[in-house]
Amino acid sequence: MNFSSDTIEKAVEQLSRFPGIGKKTALRMTLFLLKDKPENVERMASILVDLKTKVKFCGQCGNITESELCNICTSVNRNKKLICVVKDFQDIISIENTGQFNGVYHVLGGVIAPMEGVGPDDLTISDLLKRITDEGVEELVFALSANMEGDTTAFYIARKVEHLSLKISAIARGIAVGGELEYADEITLGRSILNRVPYAINN
Amino acid sequence: MNFSSDTIEKAVEQLSRFPGIGKKTALRMTLFLLKDKPENVERMASILVDLKTKVKFCGQCGNITESELCNICTSVNRNKKLICVVKDFQDIISIENTGQFNGVYHVLGGVIAPMEGVGPDDLTISDLLKRITDEGVEELVFALSANMEGDTTAFYIARKVEHLSLKISAIARGIAVGGELEYADEITLGRSILNRVPYAINN
Repeated sequence: MNFSSDTIEKAVEQLSRFPGIGKKTALRMTLFLLKDKPENVERMASILVDLKTKVKFCGQCGNITESELCNICTSVNRNKKLICVVKDFQDIISIENTGQFNGVYHVLGGVIAPMEGVGPDDLTISDLLKRITDEGVEELVFALSANMEGDTTAFYIARKVEHLSLKISAIARGIAVGGELEYADEITLGRSILNRVPYAINN
Repeated sequence: MNFSSDTIEKAVEQLSRFPGIGKKTALRMTLFLLKDKPENVERMASILVDLKTKVKFCGQCGNITESELCNICTSVNRNKKLICVVKDFQDIISIENTGQFNGVYHVLGGVIAPMEGVGPDDLTISDLLKRITDEGVEELVFALSANMEGDTTAFYIARKVEHLSLKISAIARGIAVGGELEYADEITLGRSILNRVPYAINN
């Protein structure tokens, strides 16, 4: 496409960096901003910059937060003996939106994927094991994607805690096998938390 | 949706202001920015602000530009005797992308819509009439949307220039009646410029 302004071309280029946003959509977004009030555009720009300066990761679970610990880890209403293990912090948003889980989380920061060079030591598995022993955790729920990497990671962690009297479960496979957590609808994902099944190493 | 960070909530709210962007897409965009490098996010933010400060409207045709006149009005390769009348500056981008038009443009800034309180005086019609007489324009091409407002506007302008020996045409209705110019594909839109038909007041 050919624009009569360098700035518009740059804006389109910037906005089409977003996942799922093509050139045409980026152009419509740019034209929307052109017609918007200057103060609105400045507000949007400063909030986007705020994202990088204000948002941090919880020192305990790895969730997003604006202080040291996230509001789930500091809440007195959450069951600290029940940890849901997720790959990424956006999985926490998905699960929280179901309103079906009242435990706490642990963000692994990825899954074991030897083909991509991701091993157990690249994840926060040792932090998780420390939390389990230090805090007397009673149940682990695996909420990992239903694919080989997710399964391998759950298996690896389950083996590591085998010697402890820990209940281990995994969210019910109500969501499509091979599907990503973030695309699941809230009802299916919520039910998969309620119907979590005991995790058996040899199944 | 419930986020563990005010800043993320604000970012999602801001990004879902864009047309066609819902909360879920806005969240994915926000998470993309969270994982992006700080300097990239700052660059994006400053380019969005630039949109409002650097981009102006051409003093002659109303196209977007970063100087007094746009690069179409100042080009020596464009036929200044041929003016294409469009509703909005984004229509210029659409037509330019077809590569089929070598005249200049005139942006009306809207169409006559009595139901919405838009009359001829709210548009740049008088500027257009001045351009036609001052510059000895030989042909007008109406590239307005094929609906009642577009037709009314074309009719109004045609009546105003009836006394001049001016060739008047309209883009061929190859594009769907009632459809918006900006959604037409380039080939159909390009053909509709090539096959423009004489505009008759009494047809």
